[in-house]
Amino acid sequence: MAEHLSQSELDYPFKLLEYLNGYRVSKVIFAACELGVFDLLMRSPGAMSALQVAEVLDANADGIERLLDALAGIEILQVDTAAGTALYNSTDVANTYLARGGAKSLHDMVAYHSQTIYPLWNNMADAVREGKNQNQKTFGIPPEEVFEAIYRSEDEMVKFMGLMNSSWNLDGQDVVTAFNLSCFQKIVDLGGCTGALARELAKAYPSSSITVFELPRVVEMAQKHFPQENDTFTFLSGDFFHGDVPPADLYVLARILHDWSEEKCLTLLKKLHRACKPGGGVLLVEAMLLENRRGPIMAQLFSLNMLVQTEGREHPASQYTKILDQSGFAHVQVCRTGKSYDAILAIR
Amino acid sequence: MAEHLSQSELDYPFKLLEYLNGYRVSKVIFAACELGVFDLLMRSPGAMSALQVAEVLDANADGIERLLDALAGIEILQVDTAAGTALYNSTDVANTYLARGGAKSLHDMVAYHSQTIYPLWNNMADAVREGKNQNQKTFGIPPEEVFEAIYRSEDEMVKFMGLMNSSWNLDGQDVVTAFNLSCFQKIVDLGGCTGALARELAKAYPSSSITVFELPRVVEMAQKHFPQENDTFTFLSGDFFHGDVPPADLYVLARILHDWSEEKCLTLLKKLHRACKPGGGVLLVEAMLLENRRGPIMAQLFSLNMLVQTEGREHPASQYTKILDQSGFAHVQVCRTGKSYDAILAIR
Repeated sequence: MAEHLSQSELDYPFKLLEYLNGYRVSKVIFAACELGVFDLLMRSPGAMSALQVAEVLDANADGIERLLDALAGIEILQVDTAAGTALYNSTDVANTYLARGGAKSLHDMVAYHSQTIYPLWNNMADAVREGKNQNQKTFGIPPEEVFEAIYRSEDEMVKFMGLMNSSWNLDGQDVVTAFNLSCFQKIVDLGGCTGALARELAKAYPSSSITVFELPRVVEMAQKHFPQENDTFTFLSGDFFHGDVPPADLYVLARILHDWSEEKCLTLLKKLHRACKPGGGVLLVEAMLLENRRGPIMAQLFSLNMLVQTEGREHPASQYTKILDQSGFAHVQVCRTGKSYDAILAIR
Repeated sequence: MAEHLSQSELDYPFKLLEYLNGYRVSKVIFAACELGVFDLLMRSPGAMSALQVAEVLDANADGIERLLDALAGIEILQVDTAAGTALYNSTDVANTYLARGGAKSLHDMVAYHSQTIYPLWNNMADAVREGKNQNQKTFGIPPEEVFEAIYRSEDEMVKFMGLMNSSWNLDGQDVVTAFNLSCFQKIVDLGGCTGALARELAKAYPSSSITVFELPRVVEMAQKHFPQENDTFTFLSGDFFHGDVPPADLYVLARILHDWSEEKCLTLLKKLHRACKPGGGVLLVEAMLLENRRGPIMAQLFSLNMLVQTEGREHPASQYTKILDQSGFAHVQVCRTGKSYDAILAIR
């Protein structure tokens, strides 16, 4: 990696201007998802004009045309101008990731980014100044009540769960196969949300039993909004901070520790250590920072997201190793996947 | 240009995730500008720790550390971890474009993006649905009153003028030298805002006389907030829609037509045609769309910005040629600069 942006930026800051306009590119994709552009083009038997798209989506034709053109500009859509009319087609990338309902669809992730995280980030300067989340200013909810803010309505709860669900549809397989976990008979995914990661565990380890341990209201919403046929994992209601955890050979904490203070993380890990038999373990799944602080940018952005939305942060591997040690776990192994989320395995 | 994103995106959508997270990268830079990070590091005689930066800026040390790390991740800052402490240094790019006060500083552009345009774009889906700007929803100002919204307070007015000023500090020289304009003795920049483009005209054409024709309150703010020593251009107060324009050999309309409906653009161009002597002309400066609708992405984003904030749009060269023809101008020449703004010259 270069130590800083290319010197040619000093002649004209193309890359910097791209960064400054990044929010506009995000919102182009977000708006198209929200309006149903990708769903429509995926279903369409042929290319469509802006006017046709606007009519079906009950939107303004000029607005739709500008949006479709920008999507063609970033190559998310294809455009051909035949006989003076521009005709737009979907692409494999849009069909796979931006239309609703596909196995790897990020549609729900996009909705959460657009409607919840984008407004939160408008208060980033204040978050950095104050060192605390901006739930009060953005949504009127006190900063201590992290999940009261995230679950502040059924609608918001389902949107957040959609984010987690999309995320594990995309990254779940990589993180559950980062280590061979087939030696663990009973696996409990603590805070496993919709069960999307549990589903990947069940696929990868068909002879293990997989349980999602979640708050009662989350279990209820998961079963109502995110069920899939033939699921072999089970849900169990409870609260891993305020009660016992069910017995297991392996506890999974996927994007849990990054929400909380070091003190709460230690309390939780010590509880898991007590619940483990020797040979049992814990799998942490998080976006891991580099020790040299030069990336990965995605993990650095997530760490700022934790600042603006929670009480936690992302960490480098050394910090996870440290708190696992302090909790009594040993044999810490770290696996960077090269994608958004990494995995750490530790054994009692 | 490839017709769509690389097929490797189907294995894992690295580029798409970058787009979805673009708003976070923008806000990292915006927040750092707003907090004064780049100003401090530029002035600092040596590298600084996050704690030192936080103390001087009266901000939270942990928040600052995450922000500095993300800036290092995108190579806007440099970081070295010596003896366990991370020390941060500025880069030439940050000093040139993100610190305040330099000749090419984009600091004021960033403030306007962060505080005004970012919230407007949160309503992009509605703008596309309704086909009109979102000043009502975002700022409580009716959609017809485009400049009442932009100039809704002295603070907002100065911020908008700062945006235009930054923009011509960066791009002005390229657009005024896109054509040799030395044959025009008297040049009037209509809606020339702070005079930043007039300054570039005066530098490039020292034997021409340069006048900025602006609304009285804009002239007042320009002289109050953006004066420079040794300026050789002059301000003249007026309203090019509701009164006469001063006589000139060349009228400059830089990022004016893109704010307005085709009807208003035609009215204005016809007025300029009547005011021109034969051999006189008009220079349009705009971000020009490609005829094939595949870019440039920056112009496409600007066109969506015009949707969400004004009543206008960006156009391809063919549209400018058409309305110049309809207004009576001839000899239309188009120059793409390859940067953010392009130039079109037409002669009566």
